[in-house]
Amino acid sequence: MKPMGAIPADWTAAKLAVLAATIGETPAFVYDLAIVRARVARFRVAMPEQLQLHYAIKANPYAPLLLEIAKIVDGFDVASGGEMEMALAAGVTPSHISIAGPGKRDAELAAAIEAGITINLESEGEADRALAQAGRLGTRPRVAVRVNPDFEIKGSGMRMGGGAKPFGVDAARVPALVRRLVEAGADWRGFHIFAGSQALDAGAIITAERETVALAAQLAEAAGHAPRLVNLGGGFGIPYFPGEVPLDIEAVGSALAETIESRHEILADSRFAIELGRWLVGEAGVYFTRIIDRKESHGEIFLVVDGGLHHQLAASGNFGTVVRRNYPVAIVGGSADSSEEIASIVGCLCTPLDRLADKIMMPRADVGDVVAIFMAGAYGATASPQAFLGHPAPNEILADGGILMRYLTQP
Amino acid sequence: MKPMGAIPADWTAAKLAVLAATIGETPAFVYDLAIVRARVARFRVAMPEQLQLHYAIKANPYAPLLLEIAKIVDGFDVASGGEMEMALAAGVTPSHISIAGPGKRDAELAAAIEAGITINLESEGEADRALAQAGRLGTRPRVAVRVNPDFEIKGSGMRMGGGAKPFGVDAARVPALVRRLVEAGADWRGFHIFAGSQALDAGAIITAERETVALAAQLAEAAGHAPRLVNLGGGFGIPYFPGEVPLDIEAVGSALAETIESRHEILADSRFAIELGRWLVGEAGVYFTRIIDRKESHGEIFLVVDGGLHHQLAASGNFGTVVRRNYPVAIVGGSADSSEEIASIVGCLCTPLDRLADKIMMPRADVGDVVAIFMAGAYGATASPQAFLGHPAPNEILADGGILMRYLTQP
Repeated sequence: MKPMGAIPADWTAAKLAVLAATIGETPAFVYDLAIVRARVARFRVAMPEQLQLHYAIKANPYAPLLLEIAKIVDGFDVASGGEMEMALAAGVTPSHISIAGPGKRDAELAAAIEAGITINLESEGEADRALAQAGRLGTRPRVAVRVNPDFEIKGSGMRMGGGAKPFGVDAARVPALVRRLVEAGADWRGFHIFAGSQALDAGAIITAERETVALAAQLAEAAGHAPRLVNLGGGFGIPYFPGEVPLDIEAVGSALAETIESRHEILADSRFAIELGRWLVGEAGVYFTRIIDRKESHGEIFLVVDGGLHHQLAASGNFGTVVRRNYPVAIVGGSADSSEEIASIVGCLCTPLDRLADKIMMPRADVGDVVAIFMAGAYGATASPQAFLGHPAPNEILADGGILMRYLTQP
Repeated sequence: MKPMGAIPADWTAAKLAVLAATIGETPAFVYDLAIVRARVARFRVAMPEQLQLHYAIKANPYAPLLLEIAKIVDGFDVASGGEMEMALAAGVTPSHISIAGPGKRDAELAAAIEAGITINLESEGEADRALAQAGRLGTRPRVAVRVNPDFEIKGSGMRMGGGAKPFGVDAARVPALVRRLVEAGADWRGFHIFAGSQALDAGAIITAERETVALAAQLAEAAGHAPRLVNLGGGFGIPYFPGEVPLDIEAVGSALAETIESRHEILADSRFAIELGRWLVGEAGVYFTRIIDRKESHGEIFLVVDGGLHHQLAASGNFGTVVRRNYPVAIVGGSADSSEEIASIVGCLCTPLDRLADKIMMPRADVGDVVAIFMAGAYGATASPQAFLGHPAPNEILADGGILMRYLTQP
């Protein structure tokens, strides 16, 4: 038997049972708005009042979700021209959108400049290309500089800063670039400093945020220009696996309040933002899939479901993880009785990679029962190879407090 | 500096230069039919004459490629209802199509039965469901039994047999299932025995094929019925990484000829098939992507390209591999001169996972140059999360001997 991660407390058995009974065709992702709103509310209470909250839409760009999130955050951060269009389609004011990403095409730079979206410049070469596009368009570009800091969030799931990196401009070269942008007449908005992601250690985030604010001040002093906005990045993680403990964001918030309170005077009029994706939506999503076959091989039980890694690649351990570990899963309703057994849940793809839960203890389940795979709100549907093996795309449905919202607006 | 795999000999510098100059919009996959045909020809010469060659379309289901491959192989193996439709759309006679996969929905079983496609049954439960669908339709189903053998190809990249597995029926239970199918009036076609994949060791494949034929005979004897077809699986690998040596299929072929020649008498009238995907098309594909930015960070050179893991997930080391290693890549034409440097090629996605080549020695390259990433013909476009971060889908283009075939039929 192998352990699995903890099921998020928001997902009660009652709520899951209602969804499983009403969801219809599987596989389906359900994203619960009430959970997203509760996350935003918790952020607002925990963080200093003036702190902006941005949503990194790459975590989940499902259009109806974007429409709702646009009502409750202060900005959208996008990572491509395609995401820029999604943000605009959600009604977000262009001045509240910024675009980051190491490989922006000229067409993407031009579209951002024309729309009045802030471009987080990732290199001197990209700065040249953005200025050239702005010159061609006769428009003053809104630009910020993405900084590659010399530190990173310790223990973060992904290293985004520290040492040689494809993201941003090495800190030492940033002041010269800022001066050049200002001299070229660009509308310089400030800094974007991203030191890590998927971190669960409040102490590590507190330290990184303190270093980030200090670095912003130091770069501003050296450049001779004060930033209007310092995007502190995000990095707030969620607990996927056994033994992982949720991030104490209240501790992060009160430390950040002190950090901002005691900031260098050059940042006196600067605003600050935190950019979050996974932390806002990851636990709000559940991937529901139905058991097609129950089979036994050499004494082991396999439950074969109608979903798989083509929709939830990360849960199969094939995206960004070295060692495969079990996401939290549950059998919902159906034939499950009180007896338990050790079983593996495998997807319908004809590849041994497609394993959604490996040898976990669960209620005995059978064909037709619904399996809930949690932590599916971020980096699920769009971060998976949907065309692989020619299976249908998953359904995606919004819920609000466990009630599906599709009755009038979706088929 | 880190090593990279060897560039396939079929891809000469001259051929690459012509393609890079004519390909147009990047990123683009080019699949060269001449290479696929040469593979098929080599197979026909190496293998015993009566051996059938099946194409596993999950490796690459690009429709124009399927139309061409359908002309030169003996069967298509599909892994879903969607792939079944692709095979039929390519004009393949239903009796030359078989469907395998551990999670077939009732609708897929019914569609296969109606079309006259052979269903490789993966479990007793699936057999019951297939018989039920056949009864409902009043049609005699064509079925084979997929066997989970007690052995596997030693050293294969993916373990498909041996021990507890979600694929097929444990060998010990197969004879009873065959008898049940025959008694139920199903058109029992034979066995599908798949012992591994991506194997480069001819000796290991020879041993597995010998064991497979012996197992087929033993199961047929125990069932009291001779199979019309024994699908021996495939497992032929291609060399992706430094130090890997191409499979000696001539050795495999002559050993298999002996194995078939000396088979048990119950298999006297049986036909045999090999099912290949990756070996036929993997080296025939190249992923072309263009350099958008050349940047330096802490002394390291990064070439940022307009493609990335959203099109070629496997090359980033995030699909089915534990340790990231470099696929073969080349800089094609453009500004490259005779000077060399160590550089990393990163995709345009805003994630540190998106690295296509890590610290390789290559000709100095700059913005606008084209990068060729080899081994992109199998498990590329469809095995990657194309929607991730909202970038455009890649182009896919057929070539024939290095000449693009899109002039009349594609925009």
